[in-house]
Amino acid sequence: MTTVAGTPPVASVLIVGTGLMGTSLGLALRARGVETYLSDRDPTVARAAAELGAGLDRLPPGPVTLAVIAVPPTAVAGVLADLQGKDLAAGYTDLASTKAYIQAEVERLAVDPAAFVGGHPMAGRERSGPGSARGDLFEGRPWVLTPTARTAPDALASARAVAELTGATPHVMSPAEHDHAMAVVSHAPHVVAALVAGRLADAEPAALGLAGPGVRDVTRVAAGDPALWREILATNSAAVAAILDAVGADLATVTAELRHQPDPAAALPATVDALARGNQGVERIPGKHGTAPARYQSVPVVLDDRPGQLAALFAAAGAAGINIEDVRIEHSPGQPVGLVELDVRPDLADDLAGVLRERGWIVQR
Amino acid sequence: MTTVAGTPPVASVLIVGTGLMGTSLGLALRARGVETYLSDRDPTVARAAAELGAGLDRLPPGPVTLAVIAVPPTAVAGVLADLQGKDLAAGYTDLASTKAYIQAEVERLAVDPAAFVGGHPMAGRERSGPGSARGDLFEGRPWVLTPTARTAPDALASARAVAELTGATPHVMSPAEHDHAMAVVSHAPHVVAALVAGRLADAEPAALGLAGPGVRDVTRVAAGDPALWREILATNSAAVAAILDAVGADLATVTAELRHQPDPAAALPATVDALARGNQGVERIPGKHGTAPARYQSVPVVLDDRPGQLAALFAAAGAAGINIEDVRIEHSPGQPVGLVELDVRPDLADDLAGVLRERGWIVQR
Repeated sequence: MTTVAGTPPVASVLIVGTGLMGTSLGLALRARGVETYLSDRDPTVARAAAELGAGLDRLPPGPVTLAVIAVPPTAVAGVLADLQGKDLAAGYTDLASTKAYIQAEVERLAVDPAAFVGGHPMAGRERSGPGSARGDLFEGRPWVLTPTARTAPDALASARAVAELTGATPHVMSPAEHDHAMAVVSHAPHVVAALVAGRLADAEPAALGLAGPGVRDVTRVAAGDPALWREILATNSAAVAAILDAVGADLATVTAELRHQPDPAAALPATVDALARGNQGVERIPGKHGTAPARYQSVPVVLDDRPGQLAALFAAAGAAGINIEDVRIEHSPGQPVGLVELDVRPDLADDLAGVLRERGWIVQR
Repeated sequence: MTTVAGTPPVASVLIVGTGLMGTSLGLALRARGVETYLSDRDPTVARAAAELGAGLDRLPPGPVTLAVIAVPPTAVAGVLADLQGKDLAAGYTDLASTKAYIQAEVERLAVDPAAFVGGHPMAGRERSGPGSARGDLFEGRPWVLTPTARTAPDALASARAVAELTGATPHVMSPAEHDHAMAVVSHAPHVVAALVAGRLADAEPAALGLAGPGVRDVTRVAAGDPALWREILATNSAAVAAILDAVGADLATVTAELRHQPDPAAALPATVDALARGNQGVERIPGKHGTAPARYQSVPVVLDDRPGQLAALFAAAGAAGINIEDVRIEHSPGQPVGLVELDVRPDLADDLAGVLRERGWIVQR
């Protein structure tokens, strides 16, 4: 858990909306000794969260330090106005995935917009509801906070303190910066991955039988829930459309170049340029721990698909004191054999390969 | 290794082109006792392959069972004509990544097109040259063979036997089927991933700091070599352009719907339809071992980023007899903590979570 000296104390928190996110937050804050109150438009849902230990399912006796509005994007501003009308908290935040639309609605509807700071903890699960909640859901995750020039410093400080109490890492930026960031690193990539995956819906079974690790990686996120993504895209539509426009323009250029070239020796300058820019983009994704992009070396190992094989592999690496930075398992159609790629620091790759070969592993290096 | 009863014996093989692929093939065949001859337009490269144990760096004394042409796509047909003019083999195949263009060139240039069958082992490495070769490079990988109606049965049988000797799994389809399959499961996804990654080349550092596992997956393949991919795309341009056209049309529809909608409650029918089709496409990617798509349950575990942590995790799973089907490591910007997602059979997920919790792991389930 991250603890920061000088963080102001958060004595009490009201959580409105006790689904997965709200209940998980309650569990995390209770574990840190914060007094938490729970409310949901469905009292039985708030009761379930309370029974799980997320707090007391009633409104607080006086104003809490922070009210956290854990409801869908289109409902946040209305709930905020209602809570402020009842003077239930000193500061207010939310947990929704898009921010500029909510901020505009807050400025239109809230009693005191300055007491609100938008928030977006980048955590979630495939399942929903209080029963799926976990007190460690936010541990190690980025938690974006989106103050404006008018945001009260106390509201920001309380929201930051709550984020840190859960073990998350606060990132402060404007609502528009957040939404543009999400458009480029999450929302637009999600749409494009869905479109690539959509082509597989029509593909021949024989083609799908040749699907390798590349297309699996490209399309993995396309398994996400369309209804959830509709709301995310609808409340960040302009920023997402701008990125998709740029992708579409590049795509049209590359497609035209490929369609109209009869010569396999053609230079394909636009295509090569797009591929090179892709290289540059991948290079810019930060490595672990927010440091500069790490350049790991991949050590591919063939393994039988039996329980204990991966354990033995990692045990061998661990015994040699070599940290595995990343791992991918590649599935071979029609073969009871797999290929595991272990990423390690480049200076350790030969050592790892040697250690594994000594123990009888087939290392493809 | 796959062994098939009734596979005709392959006594001798000539490998023309002793880079990574050709040399790896030589190593694999020598390990199975096949007599191999090596040739390269650069004799020092063939000599290096011979010194590594891939075979003899000279032409065979009489016709071999199969000549394997391991040169770039645009050079295959010319090499084939030359070899056939010298009557060096009974059958011929190649190892290049695209097939219809090569087949057309073979029919235009070869002395005896019927003695040639196209081949594409789906294996490779980031490094090239004989020094990077491995005898187990093809182990467990698909190896596509692309006979036409005119292909001699003996040539196909020899190529299939060579593929099986390396431990690869033969898949037989037409050159056009191969190229359309590669377009949809590899070449077009690669281009689209590069375009998404290209958007990251312009993105703000603060945005990149929020990059999560989704965008990393979508853009991973975009780190590939642009020069290599230029040749692949140039020799499969029509099939790739057709897929990219379809993606572009869907992209234009979704972008227009997002750009022109001012209402966050809008139904976005085209976008939701595209997302749902993406779900269907992902569902169709086969699971391990060529079986029906597997539905694994993901068990997320928080771990410290220290050597031995992954080993201990897999050891705990192995001790409980639970096979880990897939694994992903998620990196948390700014945190010395990682999240590992272990995929297991759904009926084992609760068991695994229980076993890990008992041993003190934080399981987010």
